Amino acid sequence: MLNKIIDLINEDLTKVENSLKSVGEVQDNHLSELLRYALGIGGKRIRPALTLLTGKLYHYDFDCLLPMAVAVELLHTATLVHDDVIDKSAIRRGQPTINDIWGEDKAVLVGDYLFARAAEVCANTGNLRVVRLFSQTLATISTGELNQAFDAFNPDQAPKHYFDRITKKTASLFVLATESGAILSQAPERAIEILREYGHSLGIAFQIVDDILDFTGTDEELGKPAGSDLAQGTLTLPAIMFMYHYPEDNQIKRFFQNRGELERKRRVIELIHNSPIIQECYDIAANYCARACQKLRLLPDDASRQVLIDLADYIVRRRK
Amino acid sequence: MLNKIIDLINEDLTKVENSLKSVGEVQDNHLSELLRYALGIGGKRIRPALTLLTGKLYHYDFDCLLPMAVAVELLHTATLVHDDVIDKSAIRRGQPTINDIWGEDKAVLVGDYLFARAAEVCANTGNLRVVRLFSQTLATISTGELNQAFDAFNPDQAPKHYFDRITKKTASLFVLATESGAILSQAPERAIEILREYGHSLGIAFQIVDDILDFTGTDEELGKPAGSDLAQGTLTLPAIMFMYHYPEDNQIKRFFQNRGELERKRRVIELIHNSPIIQECYDIAANYCARACQKLRLLPDDASRQVLIDLADYIVRRRK
Repeated sequence: MLNKIIDLINEDLTKVENSLKSVGEVQDNHLSELLRYALGIGGKRIRPALTLLTGKLYHYDFDCLLPMAVAVELLHTATLVHDDVIDKSAIRRGQPTINDIWGEDKAVLVGDYLFARAAEVCANTGNLRVVRLFSQTLATISTGELNQAFDAFNPDQAPKHYFDRITKKTASLFVLATESGAILSQAPERAIEILREYGHSLGIAFQIVDDILDFTGTDEELGKPAGSDLAQGTLTLPAIMFMYHYPEDNQIKRFFQNRGELERKRRVIELIHNSPIIQECYDIAANYCARACQKLRLLPDDASRQVLIDLADYIVRRRK
Repeated sequence: MLNKIIDLINEDLTKVENSLKSVGEVQDNHLSELLRYALGIGGKRIRPALTLLTGKLYHYDFDCLLPMAVAVELLHTATLVHDDVIDKSAIRRGQPTINDIWGEDKAVLVGDYLFARAAEVCANTGNLRVVRLFSQTLATISTGELNQAFDAFNPDQAPKHYFDRITKKTASLFVLATESGAILSQAPERAIEILREYGHSLGIAFQIVDDILDFTGTDEELGKPAGSDLAQGTLTLPAIMFMYHYPEDNQIKRFFQNRGELERKRRVIELIHNSPIIQECYDIAANYCARACQKLRLLPDDASRQVLIDLADYIVRRRK
């Protein structure tokens, strides 16, 4: 379904895929094995698609957009590798994580290597403005992840906390994807700003849906254990709303106090799953998507503009 | 003593120090605390000094050299933070490590943040060539560290293994320091090459001495437990030479097989400490330093050239 939506850029996205593969082709055998594994697990490649699509709106210069799209996906991959170390996750996208197979030390180092290669490929755009944006994005993501780590198992978090955190840890990378595409295709400043906002709102919606799926999806659909967020002490939007709706019956607080009570966790997940909270959260995500698309009308009426709108629609409807 | 050697640039090095401090001045309280701690532990600042000194040889442009020197030291700090996670070290430079105080997850993220800020500050030089060099250096360091992680507790390592590894994990950063200083001060290509080689040889010598000190220094002098390398299964030059000299009495191999035998480790360290191996290793380091300085005669006869020579001398004589 996603392939059909982004048909316009599928050919160029294949080149991004090949370029990602070539990052794993290094002399060092150990490193090569780790990189192939990290880059081979796949993913939807939504972020590089966004870079190419925003690039299509103006002067599409694939020689610049290719390294940028690759850099964005490499950065994303690196953050996932480190996330799994931080969360001590054993499985992602249905496969054992690098830390599970090779140990935490190797996973930290492969993540570092991927950051480095991402920055190097980004420099191949020859554009210092996107290089700077790239570095700032990594700083922002790390700050968001740090906030999450310090907030772990703290039941007193306002929605603002949550939105701040996902703005940093997720939306910033979507912003990098769309803003860099706009900059590299020489979009006017006003258009860069609009595509920046689009990336931001889309990223927020994406994360909200991700957080909903952690309550509603099965292990198979998610490719990891459902309910991981609660297990790791991360309060996401559905959980925050649950606590808001039932302030007197604070099951989450009690689970955070006794983390071994897996039966309680299971019950909380079931309660949230079967409550109107899920639909409320989908509505909030849909609102962000609508906001994301609203201002796109001010941009050139290009085929890629419609794809950006369809992509937003896909993101809020996806079930995995 | 070091301060006296580099007197020529002490004033500008203070500006580097202030600039490093300002990296810790961020709004987020948790992040700020971690950064101040990571950046406050200090260190000899040899790498940024090298950037400034090589810059002095040609068109000294402090506006470019300042961010570069800061980026080099930030990169160094970031790799130390991650090293401590990887080695599970509890102490460095006489202070508890970040992973010891705040946990591994926070240490991974602070390291990531420092990489990001280093890359951002490096981009402030406005020079894409050094930006690319910077990213490649991080990739090289991570590869060297990965080699070390995969080689841990493997007693069959040739000296070539060791030199390959320290070229990547240590000398590459010295090369970044000197080469970037040369590039940013518009040195001719031949001079850039010479300063590259100087950085490489100096880095190798520095690491050899570091590895010697792990056998000869006290916990207090080192600011961490002596013999850490062996304890972590890392074979350094003194250990490799010990195994070469006494092939039939392989105490190290036996310690690697029974890592709990701390008494055996203590004995190995004492044996090496009191053997001629230490002097042999110092001689090898001194040779690298001599090689580092040899070609400097081809460069302009500036005061900073003499400082580079004196610095090499300091590095091979230092006792901590």
